[in-house]
Amino acid sequence: MKLLCDRIRKDGRVLPGNVLKVDSFINHQIDVRLFRAMGEEYYRMYRDCGVNKILTIESSGIGVACFTAQFFDVPVVFAKKSRSSNIPDEVYAAPVHSYTHGNDYSATVAKRFLSAEDRVLIIDDFLANGSALRGLCDVCEQAGAAVVGAGIVIEKAFQPGGRALRAAGLRIESLAVIEAMTPEEIVFSPDSLL
Amino acid sequence: MKLLCDRIRKDGRVLPGNVLKVDSFINHQIDVRLFRAMGEEYYRMYRDCGVNKILTIESSGIGVACFTAQFFDVPVVFAKKSRSSNIPDEVYAAPVHSYTHGNDYSATVAKRFLSAEDRVLIIDDFLANGSALRGLCDVCEQAGAAVVGAGIVIEKAFQPGGRALRAAGLRIESLAVIEAMTPEEIVFSPDSLL
Repeated sequence: MKLLCDRIRKDGRVLPGNVLKVDSFINHQIDVRLFRAMGEEYYRMYRDCGVNKILTIESSGIGVACFTAQFFDVPVVFAKKSRSSNIPDEVYAAPVHSYTHGNDYSATVAKRFLSAEDRVLIIDDFLANGSALRGLCDVCEQAGAAVVGAGIVIEKAFQPGGRALRAAGLRIESLAVIEAMTPEEIVFSPDSLL
Repeated sequence: MKLLCDRIRKDGRVLPGNVLKVDSFINHQIDVRLFRAMGEEYYRMYRDCGVNKILTIESSGIGVACFTAQFFDVPVVFAKKSRSSNIPDEVYAAPVHSYTHGNDYSATVAKRFLSAEDRVLIIDDFLANGSALRGLCDVCEQAGAAVVGAGIVIEKAFQPGGRALRAAGLRIESLAVIEAMTPEEIVFSPDSLL
């Protein structure tokens, strides 16, 4: 998505440790026009898939998920991050490791909000090692829900998550696929620049 | 807002300890049509106030804030909850006590995203003791930003936050004001039912 890649080039900052800071328009301050355009793009990609629920994970997935859900006219469910090892019976839970924050948590969703009737589009802001996305797929599998695919804002293609999950059969549509990045330059996949 | 009050009566559940569960349509699963209507209502109330930024706090404020911001066509900034006592120089921070979770955290906003030029509408899902709202006002004051008011989804008027903050001069518009609640009955303020 050229609009997004241009914006990442303009306002993103690459920090040591493969960190891409996009907090001025994605995950601390939110540019609602951009988010609306991204939601519309996911709708274009997945409109024929019978999506009846959008699943994301707190916190920074919620904004994109809301804008996306508006086009599909379906509810958003956001998984919660639980640090507790006490998982109550009424939730589905899957372990997630955050490489960014160096910690582990459980992605949890109340059982009432996911079922075998659901056709789920998973939305998240970043895909790198894929641990959060794998956790959300796991939660859907526990519920017997079908995952029609994932919509990711920024994929770091030089990290293994996207490749591994696609190899496992998951459809993933990432709006900006970064093939390489340094503080001086960000290289996007050719498709991202369309 | 009658639409919201009707929904709370239908799908909300009052649990012991003055807890109102609205997770099936507000803070775990999100009804995007309802959220859109709420955003439009805040716009009707605050459209003439020169709002140029919406401020909320992760996680459950983000959805309402996004839908509201869409009508104002301004950015959303969501404060982060930090458990760390190490607050870096580049953020504003204010202490918040969560009565629901029985813990303390800092509401933090990067200094780059709030300034003396800003006219801020604060959005949050609940107002009870007012600690989070007070923290967000505090952060704005540190930045020199003007708070034009707050838009709250559900206010528990039998807890002291709303009264105290209004007495201190803050404009607060709550879409559903609960005067009393028991597992059998929820009493809304007459204005909420219009």
